[in-house]
Amino acid sequence: MVLTYDGTRYDGWQKQGNTDNTIQGKLETLLGKVLGEEIEIQGSGRTDAGVHAYGQVANFHTSSQKTLEEIEGAMNHYLPMDIGIVSLEEVDNRFHSRLHAKEKIYRYRIWNSSIHNVFERKYIYVYEQTLSITAMQKAAMQLVGTYDFKSFCSNKRMKKSTIRDLKEIQIEKTGEEIQIIYRGNGFLYNMVRILTGTLIEVGNGTRNAEEIKEVLKAENREAAGFTAPPQGLFLQKVIY
Amino acid sequence: MVLTYDGTRYDGWQKQGNTDNTIQGKLETLLGKVLGEEIEIQGSGRTDAGVHAYGQVANFHTSSQKTLEEIEGAMNHYLPMDIGIVSLEEVDNRFHSRLHAKEKIYRYRIWNSSIHNVFERKYIYVYEQTLSITAMQKAAMQLVGTYDFKSFCSNKRMKKSTIRDLKEIQIEKTGEEIQIIYRGNGFLYNMVRILTGTLIEVGNGTRNAEEIKEVLKAENREAAGFTAPPQGLFLQKVIY
Repeated sequence: MVLTYDGTRYDGWQKQGNTDNTIQGKLETLLGKVLGEEIEIQGSGRTDAGVHAYGQVANFHTSSQKTLEEIEGAMNHYLPMDIGIVSLEEVDNRFHSRLHAKEKIYRYRIWNSSIHNVFERKYIYVYEQTLSITAMQKAAMQLVGTYDFKSFCSNKRMKKSTIRDLKEIQIEKTGEEIQIIYRGNGFLYNMVRILTGTLIEVGNGTRNAEEIKEVLKAENREAAGFTAPPQGLFLQKVIY
Repeated sequence: MVLTYDGTRYDGWQKQGNTDNTIQGKLETLLGKVLGEEIEIQGSGRTDAGVHAYGQVANFHTSSQKTLEEIEGAMNHYLPMDIGIVSLEEVDNRFHSRLHAKEKIYRYRIWNSSIHNVFERKYIYVYEQTLSITAMQKAAMQLVGTYDFKSFCSNKRMKKSTIRDLKEIQIEKTGEEIQIIYRGNGFLYNMVRILTGTLIEVGNGTRNAEEIKEVLKAENREAAGFTAPPQGLFLQKVIY
């Protein structure tokens, strides 16, 4: 399944014991009803509470004889309007949406103006101070590559490797909006939001673009910038 | 003032005795506080509850010595995120945003698909049935001109003239979205929404494009189609 959702109302993607208000939870409950059997969904990765998706990917196994059209039709009929199935296809039985993901693309939207963007206000981070795009681009260049991104990870007890290959960061300003697009082989917990917060601190002059390599070397969350809020972040695409 | 707002949360533009949840009301209260005197706002026209605006125009008189930048800055700082001032300028003392409006442009957005448009769901009318754009365009041609639009007015006790000059109707389909753009010298109560409902009934085959002239001639609200819901409607621009 390729999924799109507005994360505003939800406690994130991942099913949790203490809330039934997760996107995975909503989808599993509804799929279970539509298919008449218990369904477990495997997402390509978690998205935090309040983070949105244009192209989240998830897979599940079923023994149902329903056609893809029937399943997609029933799901989009019963799903709330803030979650949608963009497409549904049959895949190899061994396909695993998380383990087989080669790259992910995230997009962060900053509204750099005091003029209200009334229709997109839930999908942007309003940041009114002037930001130097050139300085942010310079800093971004220091971040592209295969590095230990421990400084950009909120999980302090992370036991697995924190090395990731950040393949591309694109920063563009169109009108009042700044978009930062990140492409990499994988992202740590809060990584995109901390990268964005750090780039903003470079853009507003609090940090120098040159000190970014030091932030990476520190391997310490305290060395990086603030965690940008979730509402500007979109999981754009998962590449297999 | 050129104003933009998301009408979802409000009881329409016009201040009313029984609610203080109108856009005019919110603006007057806040302007009064910013300018330190009682302010009355004149809008170019009402928008119904739930209708949005990209370019509503309103004027007011003040004896305040504050600069335009100070007023706009304070207003956008204190206004809720679903109302915004796009621009503010000083005009001739005799300027009247309603009486001097030459033309208005309205836009109606129809989402013609069962696939959820999660990020724009509050700004579209979801209509899943197939619609013939060609038939709708044929019907629209019958409506362009100077006519008595009484059949397209919800106010049955309208005492003033119901003759309007509807200068242009553009219907376009892009992807899953159908946009209808209306330009005219003025619009009656619910007129754009009834025109849209009638065009949809032509598009889905309930009506023939040829019978539209009869609907106009009837001068009776019952002869026209349903009132399309407010959330797809935007007051796009007022021309002076």
